[in-house]
Amino acid sequence: MSVIADDATQSMSRRELMTLVGKVAGTAAMYQMMSSLALAANSTFDKRFSLSGAPKGASVLILGAGLAGMVAAYELQKAGYKVQILEYNNRTGGRNWSLYGGDTYTELGGITQHVQFDKGLYLNPGPWRLPYNHQGILHYCQMLGVKLESFNQANYAAYIHSQNAFGGKPQRYRTVKADFEGAVAELLSKSLQQSQLDQAVTKEDREILLQALRNWGALDQNYRYVKGRASSSRRGFDHWPGGGLDGEPTYSEPVALSDILKSGLWGEIAANDGIPEQPTLFQPVGGMGVIGRKFGELLKNVIRLNSKVVEIKQDETGVTATYVDTVKGGPPQTARGDWCVCTIPASILSQIPMNVSPAMQQAIYAIPYGASCKVGLQMKRRFWEEDEDIYGGITYTDQMNAIIAYPNTDYFSKGKGVLLGAYTFGPNASIFTSMTPQERINAAVQMGANIHPQYRTEFETGVAVAWHRVPWTLGCQGTWSEDARATHYKNICQIDGRIVLAGEHVSMIPAWQEGAVTSSIDAITRLHQRITKG
Amino acid sequence: MSVIADDATQSMSRRELMTLVGKVAGTAAMYQMMSSLALAANSTFDKRFSLSGAPKGASVLILGAGLAGMVAAYELQKAGYKVQILEYNNRTGGRNWSLYGGDTYTELGGITQHVQFDKGLYLNPGPWRLPYNHQGILHYCQMLGVKLESFNQANYAAYIHSQNAFGGKPQRYRTVKADFEGAVAELLSKSLQQSQLDQAVTKEDREILLQALRNWGALDQNYRYVKGRASSSRRGFDHWPGGGLDGEPTYSEPVALSDILKSGLWGEIAANDGIPEQPTLFQPVGGMGVIGRKFGELLKNVIRLNSKVVEIKQDETGVTATYVDTVKGGPPQTARGDWCVCTIPASILSQIPMNVSPAMQQAIYAIPYGASCKVGLQMKRRFWEEDEDIYGGITYTDQMNAIIAYPNTDYFSKGKGVLLGAYTFGPNASIFTSMTPQERINAAVQMGANIHPQYRTEFETGVAVAWHRVPWTLGCQGTWSEDARATHYKNICQIDGRIVLAGEHVSMIPAWQEGAVTSSIDAITRLHQRITKG
Repeated sequence: MSVIADDATQSMSRRELMTLVGKVAGTAAMYQMMSSLALAANSTFDKRFSLSGAPKGASVLILGAGLAGMVAAYELQKAGYKVQILEYNNRTGGRNWSLYGGDTYTELGGITQHVQFDKGLYLNPGPWRLPYNHQGILHYCQMLGVKLESFNQANYAAYIHSQNAFGGKPQRYRTVKADFEGAVAELLSKSLQQSQLDQAVTKEDREILLQALRNWGALDQNYRYVKGRASSSRRGFDHWPGGGLDGEPTYSEPVALSDILKSGLWGEIAANDGIPEQPTLFQPVGGMGVIGRKFGELLKNVIRLNSKVVEIKQDETGVTATYVDTVKGGPPQTARGDWCVCTIPASILSQIPMNVSPAMQQAIYAIPYGASCKVGLQMKRRFWEEDEDIYGGITYTDQMNAIIAYPNTDYFSKGKGVLLGAYTFGPNASIFTSMTPQERINAAVQMGANIHPQYRTEFETGVAVAWHRVPWTLGCQGTWSEDARATHYKNICQIDGRIVLAGEHVSMIPAWQEGAVTSSIDAITRLHQRITKG
Repeated sequence: MSVIADDATQSMSRRELMTLVGKVAGTAAMYQMMSSLALAANSTFDKRFSLSGAPKGASVLILGAGLAGMVAAYELQKAGYKVQILEYNNRTGGRNWSLYGGDTYTELGGITQHVQFDKGLYLNPGPWRLPYNHQGILHYCQMLGVKLESFNQANYAAYIHSQNAFGGKPQRYRTVKADFEGAVAELLSKSLQQSQLDQAVTKEDREILLQALRNWGALDQNYRYVKGRASSSRRGFDHWPGGGLDGEPTYSEPVALSDILKSGLWGEIAANDGIPEQPTLFQPVGGMGVIGRKFGELLKNVIRLNSKVVEIKQDETGVTATYVDTVKGGPPQTARGDWCVCTIPASILSQIPMNVSPAMQQAIYAIPYGASCKVGLQMKRRFWEEDEDIYGGITYTDQMNAIIAYPNTDYFSKGKGVLLGAYTFGPNASIFTSMTPQERINAAVQMGANIHPQYRTEFETGVAVAWHRVPWTLGCQGTWSEDARATHYKNICQIDGRIVLAGEHVSMIPAWQEGAVTSSIDAITRLHQRITKG
């Protein structure tokens, strides 16, 4: 990614740069450079990103004080531009948002929820995780002094649950994983030993592969996945190893592969293996919304809240946005900049008159926004920890609520806790959206109680956000189809006259904050080049 | 495990108890009970553990203020016993120990290390992790108010490294895992599709298994593990998905199975799948030694430090320990109790005259103590985070240092950090033990630099603890052979007259603090039964 437009090193290839560094600074420095350039390639974001050299007096109008808008404002201001942001909500952050006790939220349809959570507890209705390779958003967390703590996506003690398998009894993640992988290792070993794969695997490799399968799949000396120390050390014991005379373990019986297959629970074994779900992940201490709040504090002099944009019009010298004050009302007002970075979600932007090219307009129309619903449930005590040794992480279920996620903070505290009691996508999210907030909460409680019977006595209060009813996004994220992307993606990225769009919908990482951040950086980098180099 | 000797519920089976609860309190309560009894079976430790009803005036002498000794003292005192502890060191905790800047440590052979770490940084020479199912030690952490934070054992961005594979270049854990499992899934799919496993897998199961393998192994539509979105979403991209026009990803090429097999790196793929390594794990904020320190503060009135036990003698009415004050010197002194819980490691105890049965004495002689060495290295900056996006977790190498572990705290902080630069077992630990501390540190730095070249410029100061040279244990942990365990384990657990032993060496969880805790609980439970019921 081209990041430093006026930096002489830009025209060098990485190899040239490294050779140069090697000549000048010796081998140790080159190794260091190699490491920071090559090994660190976990993201398109470059930590050295910086713009500079704005033309004197040049101004940029930014629409939306979500992450994309605030990144644009911060970086453009640093480069010397005059910036201002119009924001619809009475707070900054956009979908970067946490709901705390005392907050109110009114959804489309008019129902207002008064959040009753105890102090310190929260629901993140939108993003809730920061993967290690989302270096853009992690960079701004550091810049803002947002303290991060581990988000434990993977928890082998949490459950996978199907209503129709194992009598509806949830199974520990570790048992499903161990039993599936053990059976896979045993089957492949069998095939190898019977010389069935001699075409595909050399004799030499076969012997190593058998060793590897035994090690990886917890097989016994005869390449069988059976009840014994190896399998129980992964899936758990009937009586656990312990101290003294009570310490002798008894092994547990693996579940037959056929039962795992029919249960459908295998669908979640790889749930932690996709890059954004791999450890290490993070979350801001105190709620995801801390990022948007702190960013807003930093930029408070250039942000106008409660400003609903109703028209965007560009001409030969600039861009004018017409907006109404959603609190004070009054006649429409205008804001103007030489250029405009528009981060309004396409779902909303498609309803705002804006004079851009037909290609960009069609692109804006081409992005449907996904349904999603999250339900937060406050429980009187942290029974998942106290009764079931589940500390953070996620339980998966084939019920409509889809998951139960346990708080990744304040482990072992004696107080209350807020569970993410439902996180739905797709058709189930539409069903949840059609319910009232109270019905969504009731449904999440009922479904959760099939996994944790303690819900019946411990549930206190909840809040439910269905994104299709969020007035300022009308959906959770841009859900590009492959066809739409092929036709429209490049068009929505282009600078159209004096307007450039940014946000997760203008990225290849939809629904993630990193998409908003990197989209913003890509947009302002190109805009700055256009402005400074014509 | 029998925990509440005089509790009426003890004589009930769990089924009986649940039926009773069901009758009395209704279904919801029964579900709750089921949950807390059945689902929570992740440990032999019972959170309800409590002893009571000590005979008036009965006393117990405890030898060693490590975890086993302090658990015994705490619980026996609560039950009404008079307790006292003799401890060799000038601090409590034993192998529960953290080394901070300003500490000094003198090993066998006389070399003293003056730890130079910056404030807040530490090495845990002994235990460093608390698995979720080690409910005993976790319970005492809560009891003592020890704050716990996540220990991220699993880190997909950390490396697996072999000097002889991939030109010595470390490989990200995620790529080795994805490529091995992808190849395994593809091979087994091939075998299934060629009907080679029709004896082992029914036709119905076969179709589901193929789906499951595709999902789990990131295969394409034709059941092949190839360069593409699915594989790159696990192993990483050449150019990562991002925002705007820069956002189009390019996929990375998987490593061929044959190369993974020959590299030997497959040996670490399952490194997070054993129960004590599975997420969620914890560590005390501020160092493992916080547990031993706080436990010692709680029991300070009954602990005598600097007391080297030189003889243990029981008679018909009690047990007398003779000890010398290691600081003040002077003539040997004695301490006496009606009963004795001895937690002195067998490696030391084997050298102390003690009148127990030949069976117990032989058991004490039968436990060799393992060699292990840990080296802590302070670096000027957290380059593993800044340059390589590695936040916590472990890198594995086939060099003698075995692992590099990254701090699981203060992520993203700009300050210095202490790496665990070596953690050796077995023959390599013996080689490290034979070196001077400075030589161990040098070796760890040299080996680490093959993985992180930044070592060459960032290393500042280190400390090295080789457990065979630790004067008060002469080894890391009791390494029972299977034969020795079969012959001696029950004998070492027995109450011998008025003496009972406890510690990790008297457990089926050797080398873990949970072994010490559960061994202590097992020992004092039986001792209390013996005392109260004869």
